[in-house]
Amino acid sequence: MEGKRASESKTVMTDLVLPPDTNYHGTIFGGNVMAYVDKVASITAMRHSRAMVVTASSDSLDFISPIRTGEAICLEGFITYTRNTSMEVYVKVEAENLLTGEKRLTATSYLTFVALDNEGKPTSVPPVIPESEEERWHYEGAVERFEQRNKRRQTRKERLNQSR
Amino acid sequence: MEGKRASESKTVMTDLVLPPDTNYHGTIFGGNVMAYVDKVASITAMRHSRAMVVTASSDSLDFISPIRTGEAICLEGFITYTRNTSMEVYVKVEAENLLTGEKRLTATSYLTFVALDNEGKPTSVPPVIPESEEERWHYEGAVERFEQRNKRRQTRKERLNQSR
Amino acid sequence: MEGKRASESKTVMTDLVLPPDTNYHGTIFGGNVMAYVDKVASITAMRHSRAMVVTASSDSLDFISPIRTGEAICLEGFITYTRNTSMEVYVKVEAENLLTGEKRLTATSYLTFVALDNEGKPTSVPPVIPESEEERWHYEGAVERFEQRNKRRQTRKERLNQSR
Amino acid sequence: MEGKRASESKTVMTDLVLPPDTNYHGTIFGGNVMAYVDKVASITAMRHSRAMVVTASSDSLDFISPIRTGEAICLEGFITYTRNTSMEVYVKVEAENLLTGEKRLTATSYLTFVALDNEGKPTSVPPVIPESEEERWHYEGAVERFEQRNKRRQTRKERLNQSR
Amino acid sequence: MEGKRASESKTVMTDLVLPPDTNYHGTIFGGNVMAYVDKVASITAMRHSRAMVVTASSDSLDFISPIRTGEAICLEGFITYTRNTSMEVYVKVEAENLLTGEKRLTATSYLTFVALDNEGKPTSVPPVIPESEEERWHYEGAVERFEQRNKRRQTRKERLNQSR
Amino acid sequence: MEGKRASESKTVMTDLVLPPDTNYHGTIFGGNVMAYVDKVASITAMRHSRAMVVTASSDSLDFISPIRTGEAICLEGFITYTRNTSMEVYVKVEAENLLTGEKRLTATSYLTFVALDNEGKPTSVPPVIPESEEERWHYEGAVERFEQRNKRRQTRKERLNQSR
Repeated sequence: MEGKRASESKTVMTDLVLPPDTNYHGTIFGGNVMAYVDKVASITAMRHSRAMVVTASSDSLDFISPIRTGEAICLEGFITYTRNTSMEVYVKVEAENLLTGEKRLTATSYLTFVALDNEGKPTSVPPVIPESEEERWHYEGAVERFEQRNKRRQTRKERLNQSR
Repeated sequence: MEGKRASESKTVMTDLVLPPDTNYHGTIFGGNVMAYVDKVASITAMRHSRAMVVTASSDSLDFISPIRTGEAICLEGFITYTRNTSMEVYVKVEAENLLTGEKRLTATSYLTFVALDNEGKPTSVPPVIPESEEERWHYEGAVERFEQRNKRRQTRKERLNQSR
Repeated sequence: MEGKRASESKTVMTDLVLPPDTNYHGTIFGGNVMAYVDKVASITAMRHSRAMVVTASSDSLDFISPIRTGEAICLEGFITYTRNTSMEVYVKVEAENLLTGEKRLTATSYLTFVALDNEGKPTSVPPVIPESEEERWHYEGAVERFEQRNKRRQTRKERLNQSR
Repeated sequence: MEGKRASESKTVMTDLVLPPDTNYHGTIFGGNVMAYVDKVASITAMRHSRAMVVTASSDSLDFISPIRTGEAICLEGFITYTRNTSMEVYVKVEAENLLTGEKRLTATSYLTFVALDNEGKPTSVPPVIPESEEERWHYEGAVERFEQRNKRRQTRKERLNQSR
Repeated sequence: MEGKRASESKTVMTDLVLPPDTNYHGTIFGGNVMAYVDKVASITAMRHSRAMVVTASSDSLDFISPIRTGEAICLEGFITYTRNTSMEVYVKVEAENLLTGEKRLTATSYLTFVALDNEGKPTSVPPVIPESEEERWHYEGAVERFEQRNKRRQTRKERLNQSR
Repeated sequence: MEGKRASESKTVMTDLVLPPDTNYHGTIFGGNVMAYVDKVASITAMRHSRAMVVTASSDSLDFISPIRTGEAICLEGFITYTRNTSMEVYVKVEAENLLTGEKRLTATSYLTFVALDNEGKPTSVPPVIPESEEERWHYEGAVERFEQRNKRRQTRKERLNQSR
């Protein structure tokens, strides 16, 4: 399968944070940020694979800075790595104070997706071609992250069996 | 007030069209497209003016091509013209079939916004500086559109009085 | 096809404006008003044609007066004109201050819809019979509005080709 | 306090039933019908009292006929009785098959509301003046319903104490 | 059909009350409480019958204490009685002030559901076996409530015919 | 500060998965699961600390099994560890096929929260007292997880600086 540039599936989403998305302190619920991240990453993965996709995992996510009611939430996702039927997507979330233009990093995360054919079976995806320095940087760390995830799943499975 | 380039406030939003947004034929309700258009245009206008804004008008909007469940809706908005306290924003809406990559023009519209200060009074906005060919094209037609809108409002007001 | 009175498909909707529908100044987003307008107009058009419908266009919409959180939004739609497979619907939006009873005109708009049969093909609609003075007034201006829309679409198409 | 005609606060709401409102059989969740009923009744009570209101009770509600995806839900509410600071509202819910025009009674209910002043304390409401035959019919049965509700609350309170 | 213990289908739901669920006084709309109650009761009825269900009726519901923005709404539902194809579910709603831990009874209600097979026809449900004192208490009053509901439906039907 | 048992703040949520929560294959979006997880964990953390809380991090989350439209999503959260002003919450997500009763593990995750006082400053939380075997098992691994998170944050910060 022919390779595809990371820039071809890059996905940008900008939205306004409104009262129902926020808690008592007027800052967005962590879970809402996660839902935005998954949505942007899903579109990115569908654009790369031109197939249906399902979220396989979401790496740990640290909330570096809160987003407040009335601010914009700005997300950008791109493919960082692919392996057979799975893709890794990096998503960067920023808060933008619309009255001052100040932007603050809110969170970053890696998610993995599996491409599915019409019967819902995993299907191959084109390899990603990183071009920019940022894309290459994430690409280079990907193999290690894949291995950490496999190890994590293995450990969790064992622990789960133990804890039952 | 110093001018600001149109590209500085350009706003991009990508979202998935889901069943609750669509009618019996699985195509998005026109009203939902209008709500997306207003949201993107509002963020664009806030980014340009760095002030609260309120929608003053939405020009006519023709639905050229429908968007179906499972497709992405892709919107892009930029400032095309400014006058004292008001801004004109152009929004282009495209449907993207995520499985094929095909993109279709869905609708385009001009909206006008008024910038407001903390007391909710209209406040001046920086003049826009169009740079690309597309930005200049929309800029050049703006004065005529402003005049048409004023005429339209005048006519409507008269008609409304008559029809009561 | 037998004619149908405008009053038979008249549609009324009343709703409360809540915080998630409003911006920083506590006034409803323009896009939410547009979504309400399209919904009321869609039901009106389905009631007239007894068929599925799709929004073909929305005429320009001026926001005359804002609606605030806690106020009611009151909409009324009726058919103003029909032509083969398409219908024009007029929608009037008012804000009602529920504590005082004061009503203010918020916006008015004309939308056009196409009726669709089971295969999604355009299908004929019954001619509308205007009865009240208001219905006749809108009916009389309809031919001119249809022509303006056709001209507008033509111009926009040409401009779009030019601007590409 | 001067009386107010029931017709002055009559409230009509029409909406489309969409997939997220419905269960596996494509019929609207009973709870969604109840939420619509409460909303229409709340607006009716605010229009009559021109005050904030809070739901005090909802009488039993039988679902006579389901409403399906794509049908319209049509609600009508009016004041049937008032007593000091409380109002009784009658709401009638109908399903409309938009493709045939057939209307079916879905549910009817009585709700009671208490009017509140700015400090959230109960405040007097104007007596209602029933005019149509239907309004008078509901008015005449109201005293009995008020007594049944008081009895019901008393019984429930006792049972609740017992059941703890 | 073999009996099933009430505890097997007991359903618990905890949620946060957010601004869009509340009115001007910051207390949850009665209709939203009703929608929560119906949802919890539906899951309870599906768990007992392992079938699709449809709400047949909701008994009267008194709002004993309001729930405010930022508080938790805590619901618990269990089967109190069964008869052929129908089930009665009791739901208790409490408000929890998350900052103090104080819990207040908000409302209680009985709802009835009919189990449906794949063709949407009523289908038998297993008899419920009450075990705890609370379960037995509600079980014992059920026959009387069923009869009251039948009488109520009969009366309403007659009144409705009269009032037309 | 006096210790508090883990069982005191345990939080259970049960909900129905509906079409708008799901993708083309009728399985829930990963991001929606994350939003549920954060909500349950937030309530758990507020119940333990009796304070406002903000999500500090979400550990990696593997989607072991999908949840389909019409199934129930069942979540359970409890406090596994506390340190000064922060709490770790473990959330287990299961899918329940309501027609068969089959339950499948969907995902598990650890989240950390910081308790905030009225000024939004971090405030101390009571130490958690694990009692059941499962609670103690999670408690024992917590120190290692806290250290991994600190290390992860450090690495990410460095990488972020490098990647800019």
